[in-house]
Amino acid sequence: MQRTDIAKLGEFGLIKHLTEHIELKNKSSKCGVGDDCAVLQYEADKQTLVTTDLLMEGIHFDLTYVPLEHLGYKAAITNFSDVYAMNGRPKQLLVSVALSKRFCVEDLEDLYSGLRLACDTHGVDLVGGDTSASMTGLTLSITCIGEANAEDIVYRNGAKETDLICVSGDLGAAYMGLQLLEREKAVFNQQKQEELQNGKNPETKDMDIVQPDFSGKEYLLERQLKPEARVDIIKALAEAGVKPTSMMDISDGLSSELLHICTQSNVGCRIYEEHLPLDYQTAVMAEELNMNVTTCALNGGEDYELLFTVNISDYEKVSEMKDVRLIGHITKKDLGCAIICRDGSEFELKAQGWNAINE
Amino acid sequence: MQRTDIAKLGEFGLIKHLTEHIELKNKSSKCGVGDDCAVLQYEADKQTLVTTDLLMEGIHFDLTYVPLEHLGYKAAITNFSDVYAMNGRPKQLLVSVALSKRFCVEDLEDLYSGLRLACDTHGVDLVGGDTSASMTGLTLSITCIGEANAEDIVYRNGAKETDLICVSGDLGAAYMGLQLLEREKAVFNQQKQEELQNGKNPETKDMDIVQPDFSGKEYLLERQLKPEARVDIIKALAEAGVKPTSMMDISDGLSSELLHICTQSNVGCRIYEEHLPLDYQTAVMAEELNMNVTTCALNGGEDYELLFTVNISDYEKVSEMKDVRLIGHITKKDLGCAIICRDGSEFELKAQGWNAINE
Repeated sequence: MQRTDIAKLGEFGLIKHLTEHIELKNKSSKCGVGDDCAVLQYEADKQTLVTTDLLMEGIHFDLTYVPLEHLGYKAAITNFSDVYAMNGRPKQLLVSVALSKRFCVEDLEDLYSGLRLACDTHGVDLVGGDTSASMTGLTLSITCIGEANAEDIVYRNGAKETDLICVSGDLGAAYMGLQLLEREKAVFNQQKQEELQNGKNPETKDMDIVQPDFSGKEYLLERQLKPEARVDIIKALAEAGVKPTSMMDISDGLSSELLHICTQSNVGCRIYEEHLPLDYQTAVMAEELNMNVTTCALNGGEDYELLFTVNISDYEKVSEMKDVRLIGHITKKDLGCAIICRDGSEFELKAQGWNAINE
Repeated sequence: MQRTDIAKLGEFGLIKHLTEHIELKNKSSKCGVGDDCAVLQYEADKQTLVTTDLLMEGIHFDLTYVPLEHLGYKAAITNFSDVYAMNGRPKQLLVSVALSKRFCVEDLEDLYSGLRLACDTHGVDLVGGDTSASMTGLTLSITCIGEANAEDIVYRNGAKETDLICVSGDLGAAYMGLQLLEREKAVFNQQKQEELQNGKNPETKDMDIVQPDFSGKEYLLERQLKPEARVDIIKALAEAGVKPTSMMDISDGLSSELLHICTQSNVGCRIYEEHLPLDYQTAVMAEELNMNVTTCALNGGEDYELLFTVNISDYEKVSEMKDVRLIGHITKKDLGCAIICRDGSEFELKAQGWNAINE
C-alpha cells in the first residue's frame, strides 16, 4: 500500500486534498471549508441543533480492529443520531483531526471516505474543521449542526405519568460485538507472542496465526463497527403523526438514558425484562461469555437506537410501527425507576454510564 | 492545593459541577447543556457562523508555563476571533475536554473559569460539549457559533486591485513571548538538573532555582498567554461605516494570511517593511535573540490581530482609526505578493504557516 508522508502536503495542502471535491448539497450551507468560519442560513421557522463529540484513540476506539473508514463513518453517524434524537435533521458537519507521525495521507483518505459516505447517506454537508499534529495517537472531534421546526423538537424532559416507553431495534449487540473483538485481539496477541518465542519473524510474515472466525456473529460486528442512525424511525413517527413526549439516543446504555429522561422529566418508570428487544446473536454471545444478557441490554452502550416515550393515546399507532418495541411505562416519581424481571422480582435501575475516565 | 479525583464525580457529576451555574444570556440560545443537542434560534435576517479548533497538549500548548485558566481563556478568544474575522458576533460556545489521570477536578475548574471569563467578556453562552478520558495529556476542542447579517459578512475572497491593506495592533509579540517562555523553561530545566546532581531533593523543595525575571517583557507574555480578540476594531469599522472587502484574523502569521487573501481573491499585493506595526518590546527581544524582527512580524503566529483590505475611497476613515495601520496595497495578480524593504529591495512573501505536523 502506498504511504504518502503528510509533511509532503503540509496543512493547507492536506485540507485542500481532503476537501476540494466537496459539493454543498443543502440550501442552508452558504459557505463551507476555506474561510475563518463556515456560513449557514436556516429558514426563519427553523431552530438550529448543535452537538459535538470528542473521540480519543485508546479510549473510544482501537485501531487494531477498527478500520479508519469505519471510524469515520461511525463518528459521523453517532453525531447524526444525537440530532435525530431531538427529532431534528442533521445538515452540516465539522471535522477536526489530530494525528501523530504514524499516520499517512492515505489513512486520512480512508477516514474521510467513511465520513463522506455517512454524510452522503444522510444528506449532510461537510463544511469545516481543523487538522493538526498530535504527540500520540489519533484524535477526532466532530460537530454536527441540524435543524427542526421549533414545535417538533423533542427534549428529554417531557415524559409524563402513564406515558409508554418505546425502544427501536434491539439492544446489547454493539457491546457484544466489542467483547468479541476484544477477545479475538487477545487471542491474536497471544498467538503472535508464541510464534515470536518459536523464532518466527514478524517481518517476513511467516507466522502461523489463525484468523478469527466470525461466522454467525456478523451482526454483532456490524453493530459495533458500522452502527446506523435511526432516521427511519424518526420518519415513521412523523408519518404516523406521533410526536414523542421525550427522546434520547442510546449511546451509554438503556438504564443510563432512561434515568436521564426520568430525572429531567421528574418521573419514575417501570420496564419489563421480557419486553427488552434482543437479537438471537446477542443472546448466544452472552451465553458464550457467561454474561447475563439482560445486563448487556441494560448497560451495553453504542447501540444508537432511539429511546422515547409517547402519550398512551398513541398506543395503537406505536404498537403497529415496524422495529419499535414497547418496553414499559412512566410512573409517578416516588415509585422510582425499576425493571420487572421474568420471575416478577423488581430491581432498581442504576446508571452505569461512562466510567472510562480515571479508571 | 486540594486535588479532587475526577472519578469521585463521574462523567455526569463532572459535567453538572462545571456547568450548573451557567445562565444563558443570548436570546438565540434556546437550550444549553443537558440534552442530546443545544438548541439555537437566530432571527430570520441573520446568517450563522461556525468555527472549530482542536488543541492538543504538547503541540498547541505547554502546561509547564501555561496556567489552565489562561488556556481556557485563550482557547475561547481564538475562536471568537475567527467569528469577528468574518465581521460577525460570537454567541455560543461548545467545549469538549479529554484528560488523562494526572488532572483533577480543580484543574478543570481553572480551565472553565478561563472559558467563562472569555464568554462573559464577549457575551457568549456556553451551551454544550463533551468530557472524556484520554490516554495521555489534555485535549481541548472548541466550537464557536456566531451570527451576522448576510450583507455584513466579510470573506477572504473580496480583495480588489488598489484596495488598501490594513492591520490592527502590532505583530510578532506573541511569538516573542513564546520564545521567551521557551528560553526560561530551558534555563529552569538545566538548573534543576544541576541541583539534582548536587544531591538536592526536589521533594523537600530545598532546590536553589532562580525564578525568571520577566520585567520589561510583560507585554510579550501577555500577548502569548492572554491574547484578545479585536471586537473593538470590528465595532470601530462599523461605526465609521467601513465594510472591509476581505478580512482574516492573524493566527498563522501575516505572510501566510495575506497569501490566503490574495490567492482566494485572485490578486497580488505589496506591503512595506517600514509600515509593519511593531511594539518596542518585540524589537528589543528580537535583538536579544539575534532574530530579524521583520521576519518575526511576518511569520510569528498567534497575534490574533485583524488583517483586512478596504476600498481606496475609505482611505481617510481608516487612516484616522485608532490602532489600525495601513501596511500596503492590493495589486494585479501577475505582480505576485511581495514586501518592499527599507532599502527598497523587494522579497516575495512565503507562507510559513503550520508546520507542526510530522516534523
